This record gives sequence, C-alpha cells and structure tokens, in this order.
Amino acid sequence: MKLTAAQLKEFDHEGYVFLPSVFSRAEADMLNEEAHRIFAMQREEVWRESSGVVARTAFAAHTYSEPYRRLGRHPRLIGPVEQLVDGKVYMHQFKINAKAAFDGEIWQWHQDYGTWKADDEMPEPRAMNIAVFLDDVTAANGPLLFLPQSHKLGALDAGHDLQTTSYPLWTLDREMVTKLAKRGGCVAPTGPSGSVLMFHSCLVHASPPNISPFDRTVVYLSLCETSNHIRRFKRKEWIAHRDFTPIEPLPDDCLADLVRDRTTRQAAE
Amino acid sequence: MKLTAAQLKEFDHEGYVFLPSVFSRAEADMLNEEAHRIFAMQREEVWRESSGVVARTAFAAHTYSEPYRRLGRHPRLIGPVEQLVDGKVYMHQFKINAKAAFDGEIWQWHQDYGTWKADDEMPEPRAMNIAVFLDDVTAANGPLLFLPQSHKLGALDAGHDLQTTSYPLWTLDREMVTKLAKRGGCVAPTGPSGSVLMFHSCLVHASPPNISPFDRTVVYLSLCETSNHIRRFKRKEWIAHRDFTPIEPLPDDCLADLVRDRTTRQAAE
Repeated sequence: MKLTAAQLKEFDHEGYVFLPSVFSRAEADMLNEEAHRIFAMQREEVWRESSGVVARTAFAAHTYSEPYRRLGRHPRLIGPVEQLVDGKVYMHQFKINAKAAFDGEIWQWHQDYGTWKADDEMPEPRAMNIAVFLDDVTAANGPLLFLPQSHKLGALDAGHDLQTTSYPLWTLDREMVTKLAKRGGCVAPTGPSGSVLMFHSCLVHASPPNISPFDRTVVYLSLCETSNHIRRFKRKEWIAHRDFTPIEPLPDDCLADLVRDRTTRQAAE
Repeated sequence: MKLTAAQLKEFDHEGYVFLPSVFSRAEADMLNEEAHRIFAMQREEVWRESSGVVARTAFAAHTYSEPYRRLGRHPRLIGPVEQLVDGKVYMHQFKINAKAAFDGEIWQWHQDYGTWKADDEMPEPRAMNIAVFLDDVTAANGPLLFLPQSHKLGALDAGHDLQTTSYPLWTLDREMVTKLAKRGGCVAPTGPSGSVLMFHSCLVHASPPNISPFDRTVVYLSLCETSNHIRRFKRKEWIAHRDFTPIEPLPDDCLADLVRDRTTRQAAE
C-alpha cells in the first residue's frame, strides 16, 4: 500500500491523512478482542485511569501479543510511513488506548514530539503516529481532536502536566491552543472500526473524555526514521523502545491469516 | 414555518428532528453577543461552573433581555412545537448553556421530563425542548448526545445527582444508558450556528465537557402544552415558570428587525 501524491500533499499541508477501513471488520475485531484480553492483565505495561480500575493504556503489546506483533509490522502501515519520513523506520512507542465507555478520561492538548524531545532526546521530528481504530469512532465517544497545520511550527513550549490524569504529559497552554485553532481550525476525524489516521509527530492533538456507553479503543504506533533514534534512555524500555532495527513488513495477509486460524480452531473446539 | 409530514414522522420515530440554519448568521451572532453580556452579569439566574468563575447556564433571559424575549416567541420555533404537542404552549423553562471553551463541563445522561415530573409535577410529557445553536456545533466542542428512540419509554428511573457539577440533575444509571444505546444507537447532531434541534422531553441525552478552544453556546427553550402545566412550585419561579399564558408568536422578522436596529444605531454612533 502506497499513499497517492494527493494524500502526501494533504499530509504535508494539514499534518494528517485519514484512511477509512484500511483493515477489515474481522481484522479489527480480532485486535479488539485481544486488546481487552491485554487490558485485563496485571502487568506493569498496563496503566489504569486515575480511578485505578479501568485500563487507560497498554504499552508494548507488540512484544507480548502475536496479533499486535503482526500489526506492528503490517505493510499497510509501514509502507506509507516509510514514504512520509523518507526512510526505514523503527518502533519508538506502541500503545493501545482504551478510552473506555463512561470511564475513559481526557488527553490534554499536546504534541507527541514534545515528549519525545524532552524526555527521550529524539533529535528531529522525523517520526510519525498511526492511529488504528478498533471501534467505530464517532462524535459521541471521545474522538481524537486535531489542530490542522500546527505541525509546521516544530516543538512548541509545553508544561509538564502530572495532575490531570494518571499519565504524565507535556501539554500546551490555552493561549497557544486558541491561537493555533483560530489559524487552522479544530477537527475530529471519525470513521468505522479498521480506519487509520496517520499524523505528524508535531501535530497538536487532544481527546475528550468518553461519556458514551460505547468503548473507543485505538492503537497508536509511533514510528521513527532509524537514523533519528532517541539518544536518552530515561523512560522505561517498554515506553520508549531502544531497538532501532529497521522494521521489515510482513505479508499483507498476516492478520487475515490469524483471523482464519482462530476461526478454524474455534470451529474445531 | 411548519414541519413536513416526513419531519413529524422522524420526530415520532427517533425522538428528535434537526433543522439546519433556521436562523441567519446575523440573527445567531446577535443572540450570541447578548448571551455573553448576560453571562457577565452578577445575578441569581446566572449559574457558574464548579470552579465558580465561568458561566454554566443563564436562566429566564427572555424575561430580562429583549433579543431573548423575541426568541422565546419566535414563529420558527413556536409553530413547529404547537404541531408536535398538538396545542398551544407556554414557556416552562428558558436557559442559555455556555459550555465555554476549555471549561464547559459535562451534563450527565438524563431525561428533562424526569426532572419536570419529579420536581415540578408536570402531569404528562406533552412538552418539548428546542436547542438553538449560537456557535457552530462540531464533534470537537462538546455536542449534545442523544439516545434515539429512548423517548418511547416514558419517565425512566433516575437518581438525584448533586455531586458531578454545580447543577442538580436526575440522572440515569449506566446499565440503562447502555441498554438504550444498544437498541437505538447514540448520535451527536452537529451543524452551523443558527441550527435548531427539537427533541422530546423524554429523549435521553447528555453532553461531554468542551475541551476545545471554541465556545459552544446553545439556548434551550422548554415548551409545555398549556393544559399540562406544572402543579408544584418547589423550584424558583425563574427556573420553572408559573406563567401558563399561551405564547402568541411574533412576526418572522422580529429578530432580523433588531439586527437592523442595532446596525443602524452602531453606524450612527
């Protein structure tokens, strides 16, 4: 899978590109089921919301889950990202954000590269985020909000927010967010389960609480051009990875195969 | 202005009808400007968010503001509502909800009729809500969420929530909300400033916090068929009105006239 010239131009101008239904419903459903199995695990990679009960995010699932190992090397994701950063990539961060029905809390306005620079000493924003929707994302269940065109400004001044949620984050102040939104607007890309959002590591984004009765599970792959790897190893290895080996994509049917294997096994049981 | 047969059928089936751009941008802008003048007033009808600073809701503005007096008798609102409740109506409640940029807090899942029955002894749900958008409402700025078809079930069991926000509300539990959403879905009608949402007093609704940098000001008119007037006067008169006189609509240009007057006056100054 390759992005078209129009998509590359859109990404350059707006800071993101939305690709509806990149994965089939069956592929997304299998990943979703696996996500909930992981959220139920008691392990240090699985963080809870402030309440301490419901999962907020699960790190590094590609290192301990076969479906996520395959997603992390999927050609429908790796191919386009190689185009966008113009080179081979390694996995800098991998997380599954739960944003659970009723309980999913806010993510404040931030740039991911802000954290990667401040905490991990990543030299340049030659890195990307990919959001893979594992539930339908609607206006109702806490969609990701973007400030288009904000990626053009590099790393912006941020403060370290240790209070709002269970997850520490370098966040932008209201004055800056308002200024950027007046210039480029504020959008909430929504779409069916299996859709993909690719966005620049400097794009300012946030997401509101999910007060709806529907979950909004989204996987985030953060991919970095290999020569731009992080220089500082302050955060846990399962938060900011240190394996800079270029990712070799698997065949396109790597997830579909797994869906078929599971269906066959379930039928035999 | 009259609703079509298709709109009446949609309202009956879904519990709401969305009417885009009922008011012009100029009419909506004038009302919006007036809303912010009111939010800045120190009077008992203007309630603040829990923080105590930013306005949450302003009651009864139709009794102390000329633009809102006119909106409360506007034929584009009163005509359709008379069709929907099959009779003349009086103003049961009138409020402007601020849902301010960054600070606007949640409204939990509830039916308005639940409160009107429990607190005000309104005999039947022969009453309606009209939401008039004074800002563009998008997925990003805390849109109203509906559970379609939930209006068919009458008043549902509710608990009195005095904790979550500054405004006491009879709210539904998660189990009920989930059950209703699985049956009829969960939608977030969005549209430009000047649009109107008419919804049944038994329709279950909520709205998330507004974390965006854009305000989301919405006026709510709650209109009740005159013979169905409330029987109990427990709440303040400016929250649950006691004037059951049937509303006589003004001419269609009543707000446009005021826009023109203001423009003329400003030009002369």
